[in-house]
Amino acid sequence: MHKVGVIGGGQLARMMQPAAIALGVNLCVFAETEGSSAHNAVIKVGDYTDLNQLREFAKSVDVITFDHEHVPPKLLRELEAEGVKVRPGPEALIHAQNKLVMRKKLTEIGLPQPNWAEVSSARELQAFIDQQGSGVVVKTPIGGYDGKGVRVITSVSEVSDWLENIADFGGSLLAEQKVEFDSEAAQLIARRPSGETRHWPLVQTIQSGGVCSEVVAPFPSGSLGEEGAKIGQAIANGLGVTGVLAVEMFVLPGGRLLVNELAMRPHNSGHFSIEGSNTSQFEQHLRAVLDLPLGDTAMGSKAAVMVNLLGVDDKNNFYEHYPRLMDKYPEVKFHLYEKAARAGRKMGHLTVLGSDAAELLETGRAARSMIYGEA
Amino acid sequence: MHKVGVIGGGQLARMMQPAAIALGVNLCVFAETEGSSAHNAVIKVGDYTDLNQLREFAKSVDVITFDHEHVPPKLLRELEAEGVKVRPGPEALIHAQNKLVMRKKLTEIGLPQPNWAEVSSARELQAFIDQQGSGVVVKTPIGGYDGKGVRVITSVSEVSDWLENIADFGGSLLAEQKVEFDSEAAQLIARRPSGETRHWPLVQTIQSGGVCSEVVAPFPSGSLGEEGAKIGQAIANGLGVTGVLAVEMFVLPGGRLLVNELAMRPHNSGHFSIEGSNTSQFEQHLRAVLDLPLGDTAMGSKAAVMVNLLGVDDKNNFYEHYPRLMDKYPEVKFHLYEKAARAGRKMGHLTVLGSDAAELLETGRAARSMIYGEA
Repeated sequence: MHKVGVIGGGQLARMMQPAAIALGVNLCVFAETEGSSAHNAVIKVGDYTDLNQLREFAKSVDVITFDHEHVPPKLLRELEAEGVKVRPGPEALIHAQNKLVMRKKLTEIGLPQPNWAEVSSARELQAFIDQQGSGVVVKTPIGGYDGKGVRVITSVSEVSDWLENIADFGGSLLAEQKVEFDSEAAQLIARRPSGETRHWPLVQTIQSGGVCSEVVAPFPSGSLGEEGAKIGQAIANGLGVTGVLAVEMFVLPGGRLLVNELAMRPHNSGHFSIEGSNTSQFEQHLRAVLDLPLGDTAMGSKAAVMVNLLGVDDKNNFYEHYPRLMDKYPEVKFHLYEKAARAGRKMGHLTVLGSDAAELLETGRAARSMIYGEA
Repeated sequence: MHKVGVIGGGQLARMMQPAAIALGVNLCVFAETEGSSAHNAVIKVGDYTDLNQLREFAKSVDVITFDHEHVPPKLLRELEAEGVKVRPGPEALIHAQNKLVMRKKLTEIGLPQPNWAEVSSARELQAFIDQQGSGVVVKTPIGGYDGKGVRVITSVSEVSDWLENIADFGGSLLAEQKVEFDSEAAQLIARRPSGETRHWPLVQTIQSGGVCSEVVAPFPSGSLGEEGAKIGQAIANGLGVTGVLAVEMFVLPGGRLLVNELAMRPHNSGHFSIEGSNTSQFEQHLRAVLDLPLGDTAMGSKAAVMVNLLGVDDKNNFYEHYPRLMDKYPEVKFHLYEKAARAGRKMGHLTVLGSDAAELLETGRAARSMIYGEA
């Protein structure tokens, strides 16, 4: 088993390639469009909602995995029934695809999460709002990411368009308590079919406009690490995850953690692990989906900071700032995804390793200002 | 300038690819055969001794560099005259291609090296043998690597076949003092066209049968580091190198260093830098040939050990040992080159990071025994 097929040609597939090259594994990407970020590894360009195309792709590889969560569960179940190794499998993946399914499951296994309700009508939503006593967050069960499909509301009318088309969302929406949190965290963990798991240290994620802006590893206040790992473990095992699982969490003022979202693939909060951990999330994901023993996840430095690079506009060219930037920051590690520029789009990231997280964050942000052409 | 063309599709080109992906640089490889180690990045398969093919390849990239030293200097001079950016340039590269040219140049800039002589006849060789008083090493000026083109002799008759065909070697051979050394070392350094250089710590190279077997970074006895760096610097600047330069050296019993061989490309002695240094030799080579500022070369751990994996026979399959090996050594980093198995062929390497070099060497060797199917 040395051919891993990845559905989706984004930056996550792109960053699996270096890990595959090291392991001597062949990475084969099924991309949506020509010239994708993972173009080096693309063997097929097509439509991932077409069962025949998926089937054909699956035949050319030993196992299929994902760059995103958008492949319809029904198709994955059909492939699995036909004997294709789908990792994570559709029964696990559904929890990352459908937020209502996820909330129900986490309630079932008793994990800490915000108050929530499944609402199908204005009346039900109003009842939930009344019960919470303050604003609530309404989410479409599927299709949301990076702040899309999520609205913070105080009145039912703010989602009347969704309620009027409720059938488009499978008949119901997810309403959640608006959590007053101190900060946000993410727990990365990998699990392989044999059941072995390995986790990285809990990290702090700093969001801006609903998009991850920076990640600090490990989470600056050390006492939460154990609880984060316990939650990650419970979800990885409870849901039967294969591959990398990212658990995004709210950190409450008292230090309690509440599960916010799940992703079952390498995740933005784990990019620090490329340089910052003995085994990167991308290598670990490949090991896990190939059912190989997992690698050591210890960090090589006391701290690591990852800074996202978002498109400034549709003309920005980060390369032109390389000379000044590399000259000033010889220690910064660069990752550009070769994506067409667009304001707000994830175009790359920077990583800095060291001993003082606050200093690293300052360096990372200053380097980003420079690559944005601001400084 | 974001397209780097590499001539040669071996493991060095292969290992440039992860660095290129991170930097968002496009790597384009000109390979000799289909299915080469660098197959992911190959855009052309052809004959690197054909000027027209080289010219065509050069047109599709911004700069050309090398996986090996076998491109005839004459062709590179023609390309350069036509405006192609060749890095390292032919006037520097010749010192890694021709050992006689190298010895003359090092004598000229006054660097420590074994006694040597250019010999064109049995009489001249005998005179050198008499002068040394013990065995000597005879080398063909071009084409030798990993112990090929090198003979340790005590009598002229042992190279009579070479002497009889002396014209095939450009009219002369290189005779060198057989150095009684304590150990061997290598100095890796990168230089870019602007003149900036950065070096890694001096490393110990352990050879077996003329082939590198293990590398210990940094060199266990710390006092030689400064001298190694000085020699590396003098050669990089004196020869006008662009890219990574590897200086292989003998360590004499008293601790003196003598230059043995040069390579002007990423080198086996620098593979530890992939995980062991903040900037790997592969990333640094790309930065250098693109004339970008060089990255920080500090090591993230106290020590790193690299262990080569050589083909056991023509059927050996290292993958089958992955499960046992990864289970026992979660901290070991794997690199397989996807090359067809052949006894003695460089098929991959392992790297281990830690604080005690002797322990790491033991771990690396034990892991190798396991992947060889011996343990």
